[in-house]
Amino acid sequence: MKHLIEKHVKSEVVFEGNLLTVRRDTVELPNGKLATRELIQHPGAVAVVAVREDGKILLVRQYRYPIDQVTLEIPAGKLDQGEKPEDCAKRELEEETGYQAKKLRLLSSIITTPGFTNEVIHLFLAEDLILAEQCPDEDEFIDAEAFTKAEIRTMIDNGTICDAKSLTGLLLAGL
Amino acid sequence: MKHLIEKHVKSEVVFEGNLLTVRRDTVELPNGKLATRELIQHPGAVAVVAVREDGKILLVRQYRYPIDQVTLEIPAGKLDQGEKPEDCAKRELEEETGYQAKKLRLLSSIITTPGFTNEVIHLFLAEDLILAEQCPDEDEFIDAEAFTKAEIRTMIDNGTICDAKSLTGLLLAGL
Repeated sequence: MKHLIEKHVKSEVVFEGNLLTVRRDTVELPNGKLATRELIQHPGAVAVVAVREDGKILLVRQYRYPIDQVTLEIPAGKLDQGEKPEDCAKRELEEETGYQAKKLRLLSSIITTPGFTNEVIHLFLAEDLILAEQCPDEDEFIDAEAFTKAEIRTMIDNGTICDAKSLTGLLLAGL
Repeated sequence: MKHLIEKHVKSEVVFEGNLLTVRRDTVELPNGKLATRELIQHPGAVAVVAVREDGKILLVRQYRYPIDQVTLEIPAGKLDQGEKPEDCAKRELEEETGYQAKKLRLLSSIITTPGFTNEVIHLFLAEDLILAEQCPDEDEFIDAEAFTKAEIRTMIDNGTICDAKSLTGLLLAGL
């Protein structure tokens, strides 16, 4: 596969924000020519398909500024520095839905948009849930709701659930 | 859902590259406080689950610089300005695999990472394929290969296929 590989020549941070770090790198293409690659550096994230005892699945309703829409997504969030994906999954699930998971299983680790970011999302299946309390981040406005598998399937088919990590997680969990 | 919505106050382009346009916007939160939102402006894209007469599905093997990996993904690409998603799907499929699709059906339009980009990917199912010839973009190094459904299922389960749009498309197509 050597004929596909690009060699790193140099990196330059062109924007450093609160959320995004944007880099412009120079690479050597397989044909020896130089090219630039722009990318977003990302710390990685988790997302959780959380199934309650009654079979209902927890989704969060959240305004997403970049697309100016209120979406329904599985609970998710970015890894804190040095945080293990499992710990992050438990933390985000509790922060966003109020539930603690006694059982957690990795479904898959996915890349969201390999064309312009190194973001990896670790998708977990959470079961044996206990209701603690919802304590979202300050300035994070989220509504958690529980849906039956049939409702989820309908919302996948009619496009109400359209977020890639949520679709992947729900479909990998067998919905 | 008004209690979730953020109001746009102002936008500023903080980086304009060849690939990425990065904006830092100011918004008013539901509680009246101001906050900044950083995001990548994206023109939208398409991705295609292309099924040959023999039942095999076309994937492209491609080096992805941001994650420094050779991935297996469904054929995909960005919309040209003013281009219809259907036309883009046909164009990208032919450029990356050499096949022309006589039948094209929209599976879903997904958002990849609503936390930091407005990217929408229109996922298509392509059937009735005719082999034309492979003519990738200049400086695009891609290998197209065909896999059986059983091979695809194995690669989904063992994580070889880990790209979110590819997983979503293949799973929505019933794999």
